[in-house]
Amino acid sequence: MTATIKDVAKLANVAPSTVSRVIANNPRISEKTKRRVREAMDHLGYHPNFNARSLANRSSQAIGLVLPGSADKAFQNPFFPEVIRGISTIVHEKEYALYMSTGKTEEEIYDGVVRMVQGGRVDGILLLYSSVDDQVMNYLIEKKFPFALVGKPLKNEQSITHIDNHNFQASRDVADYLISLGHEKIGFVGGSSRLVVTIDRLLGYEKSLRSHQLPYREDYIIHEEFLEKGGQEAIRKLLALDEPPTALLVMDDLMAFGVLRTLNEMQLSVPDDISVVSFNNVMLAAFSTPGLTSVDINIFQLGYEAAVCLMDLISNPDQKPMRVAVPYRLIERQSCKAKTAQKQGSI
Amino acid sequence: MTATIKDVAKLANVAPSTVSRVIANNPRISEKTKRRVREAMDHLGYHPNFNARSLANRSSQAIGLVLPGSADKAFQNPFFPEVIRGISTIVHEKEYALYMSTGKTEEEIYDGVVRMVQGGRVDGILLLYSSVDDQVMNYLIEKKFPFALVGKPLKNEQSITHIDNHNFQASRDVADYLISLGHEKIGFVGGSSRLVVTIDRLLGYEKSLRSHQLPYREDYIIHEEFLEKGGQEAIRKLLALDEPPTALLVMDDLMAFGVLRTLNEMQLSVPDDISVVSFNNVMLAAFSTPGLTSVDINIFQLGYEAAVCLMDLISNPDQKPMRVAVPYRLIERQSCKAKTAQKQGSI
Repeated sequence: MTATIKDVAKLANVAPSTVSRVIANNPRISEKTKRRVREAMDHLGYHPNFNARSLANRSSQAIGLVLPGSADKAFQNPFFPEVIRGISTIVHEKEYALYMSTGKTEEEIYDGVVRMVQGGRVDGILLLYSSVDDQVMNYLIEKKFPFALVGKPLKNEQSITHIDNHNFQASRDVADYLISLGHEKIGFVGGSSRLVVTIDRLLGYEKSLRSHQLPYREDYIIHEEFLEKGGQEAIRKLLALDEPPTALLVMDDLMAFGVLRTLNEMQLSVPDDISVVSFNNVMLAAFSTPGLTSVDINIFQLGYEAAVCLMDLISNPDQKPMRVAVPYRLIERQSCKAKTAQKQGSI
Repeated sequence: MTATIKDVAKLANVAPSTVSRVIANNPRISEKTKRRVREAMDHLGYHPNFNARSLANRSSQAIGLVLPGSADKAFQNPFFPEVIRGISTIVHEKEYALYMSTGKTEEEIYDGVVRMVQGGRVDGILLLYSSVDDQVMNYLIEKKFPFALVGKPLKNEQSITHIDNHNFQASRDVADYLISLGHEKIGFVGGSSRLVVTIDRLLGYEKSLRSHQLPYREDYIIHEEFLEKGGQEAIRKLLALDEPPTALLVMDDLMAFGVLRTLNEMQLSVPDDISVVSFNNVMLAAFSTPGLTSVDINIFQLGYEAAVCLMDLISNPDQKPMRVAVPYRLIERQSCKAKTAQKQGSI
């Protein structure tokens, strides 16, 4: 059996942290202690080569994170840091590191994943988005490489481990909520139509409208990036319509802040002129003016559960695919108003 | 010379992305194209083993990020995602990945760094904080491993590549600004006294007070974590004093939001009862109520410049240590008021 840092500490009668410091040749450790620890290391045949374990059991002790587009862009949205917070809680317990490729285009991201997998740099991968016909996912399935998806796959739901919210239902709930306030003209501001989360939420929105015999209008559906700028673009398009919506379902808080900013610049009031509900409930939602009504999707928990599942898949090759649904909750603040209480004909 | 994916693409007369897709056995590529690409791969002796390059030139094509404490905690503060945004812009250009250990305690972080270095997992390291007598930094110096520091080293400034703001001067400017508004009782809410950035800013604050013949009061100096909770703790301590300050220099926006929240709960007004200036100018600063006057330290640029320097150190072993000072700027919003315009004797 290979000696560990703890064995050395025990034999030298010091704390394990002292052994670490001796390895680092820390000047705060006395020469006498250093000598004693080094003798213990020699005696036990301990070599502070941390790669040895990894070579021996063919484990990289790291998991790969795949973002949709560059970290440069993704990290503008508080969603990803918060997901990574949840992930790192679990990987820390298992002494795993995080490995993140930095590709921007679909092809660069794909190449980054191939490098991770073929280079043996990670033991498993967390795919932090789900898009239609994603070649990264196809590759991981083909390679039978352990991975878990934050989001829902468009097909093969039974065979892919995935962690998400019930997005169809959450979106239907939000539209129902706006309808209950008397709104009939409700805009939908979503992300790329290649993202499964957009598809799911659009279906939930449509279902709500149809259940209430309200028309489903293509001109009320806008697809933009999950950035403040995306929200600004979206609201400009909607306000240019002959009959702009009186309420909006916005798929992302950052987009919603863009909507609020643009409406404020145009001297339109939320919620007096237009009601807004958003998703994610990031910290900023409580601080914005007005406070943003937003669906708390438990971002931290999404990351946490995904990491738990991936660790299961890595440690147990016979583990069956899992699906975890993380609960969501509408947090009401000040960005919605009953249609009858809104200003009449202001937009 | 080894064949590249581009050589294969040229010979098969397809786009490089098509070659990637053939390697992934993507069903969207026709069998005919797959056959042609595979023939080209055979002909050129191309093997899609991305590890080969790394083995050949002994490069990991990754850089390590060292956070102060766990990602779990660090990522609560928008500072780190924003630094990483700046870093990833550069590492993306160089086709580098990011490697992040997940230790929580000082010892775990140290062990994580030793694993990165000795396991050959990274070509260089970015240390995203500077603390007094940091054993991680001592280890990297000892090993002569390429690293750059976001922050200022307490000693050996000439021999350590570091990227920071002029924190002494920035803090002095902020205190001067509050004094120019008529404030004489100014509290200092900083981070751990083991962080060099806290030490520097405290010195700048002290210098400003002394230049204006104002007393430097130990009871006005509070050290807490860079979290909302830290700000809440700090303001409670300051308000419990017989003579609480009328203005605060807070070292971090997240702390400042904690201060605002607690004052709001106590029905005290910013800026009517107390003026607040903060550092970082994160997005939330513009959205809070009142808008937070904050020093923009150009977080993105700190990460960007640090990555540029590290890449230089990695590619050129003879590169001399560098120091980059990133400019800062006070952004005035609504959280400060002249002392004479504040309510009298309200706190």
